[in-house]
Amino acid sequence: MSYENDPCADANMKSYRKELWLEVPTRRAFINITRQVEEFVRESGIREGLALVNSTHVTAAVFIDDDETGLYRHYEVWLERLAPVVVTDPNDEDIIGEDIIDAHMKRHLMGREVVVAVTEGQLDFGHWENIFYGEFDGGRKKRVLVKIIGE
Amino acid sequence: MSYENDPCADANMKSYRKELWLEVPTRRAFINITRQVEEFVRESGIREGLALVNSTHVTAAVFIDDDETGLYRHYEVWLERLAPVVVTDPNDEDIIGEDIIDAHMKRHLMGREVVVAVTEGQLDFGHWENIFYGEFDGGRKKRVLVKIIGE
Amino acid sequence: MSYENDPCADANMKSYRKELWLEVPTRRAFINITRQVEEFVRESGIREGLALVNSTHVTAAVFIDDDETGLYRHYEVWLERLAPVVVTDPNDEDIIGEDIIDAHMKRHLMGREVVVAVTEGQLDFGHWENIFYGEFDGGRKKRVLVKIIGE
Repeated sequence: MSYENDPCADANMKSYRKELWLEVPTRRAFINITRQVEEFVRESGIREGLALVNSTHVTAAVFIDDDETGLYRHYEVWLERLAPVVVTDPNDEDIIGEDIIDAHMKRHLMGREVVVAVTEGQLDFGHWENIFYGEFDGGRKKRVLVKIIGE
Repeated sequence: MSYENDPCADANMKSYRKELWLEVPTRRAFINITRQVEEFVRESGIREGLALVNSTHVTAAVFIDDDETGLYRHYEVWLERLAPVVVTDPNDEDIIGEDIIDAHMKRHLMGREVVVAVTEGQLDFGHWENIFYGEFDGGRKKRVLVKIIGE
Repeated sequence: MSYENDPCADANMKSYRKELWLEVPTRRAFINITRQVEEFVRESGIREGLALVNSTHVTAAVFIDDDETGLYRHYEVWLERLAPVVVTDPNDEDIIGEDIIDAHMKRHLMGREVVVAVTEGQLDFGHWENIFYGEFDGGRKKRVLVKIIGE
């Protein structure tokens, strides 16, 4: 059975997947990736739906915040205070991966993923909302995943 | 080509978008918005899907927790301890927006958004789950976005 | 009007819901639930979509991290430092639920839910990504909700 015009075309669910690769030379950095995600939304052709943007690495974050340099210098100090490079437990000497545990903790504070509404083919954002990638253990290529579903 | 009865009607994807406006007179507050979101779910007509509820402001949070007054008095103290109004870095004097940086940090600790399952036309919640709006820089109108997709 | 072959079958939206029950005998524990969620994705038959995995309890978390024992021993110490069992406010003596408030706070630090892309019928994960259940007030049966929507 075939149709010249698919009767379901307008309302069918679509999905779209794209990877964004980043290589941060320093150990830590915050990078605005809004523009790239916006481009992916356009490319997807999805008008109404949800966009998931997540880090695929457990030592990097994806979060939403203002694009304000002063903020990120503060976050550097703040995250080091809450999740310092060395966490010591006097009763526990046999621990592995000690040198990157702070990166895991910092990423939990900032978050692995964001879900953003897509409305009329665009990221449905508040005025100050930007999507940021937070690197806490840089020096190699890492991957952000964007998955959009909708119609 | 047209149908009297759309053969796809039952299973087509639907999307729904609604804004919830709040104006908190104090600098900080926690407000239960579950009832409003439930009403939006009913209004949407969506029976099975996902509901995204997010703050569109970078100094306000949306999160899920118990509706227990004592809890929120505790959070006031706790959040101020983890993300105090003044974060000082002796090496960094040239910072902007200092007076609201604590609001950004507090919001990261509590979260920007929640995604809730919609099942049989209702928020698919555990017994104690309520959706809260956390204001950390009040005194003006702010907006929560609800986007629901499903069938 | 009926079809032998539904013209919309391939692209229609599907949804799937399943509960995962856990009973942790200790007060706190971190449990890898990736295998169970993978099985639910297979069972759902959904090839492209989004999977929401959330705790339905306000004293338990669902988050993504590496399956590395040393990490979780660290988290025990770290979470107790940031969200200790006793938070005292000299001005506030009339508080309820004090003995489990730390569990609420620890859960906010680790997160209520994750949203994971489903691609070609599988969780679309980075190499080290695993889904963990974080229990902060165990000793009774609790429930994780998995809701998948897609096609």
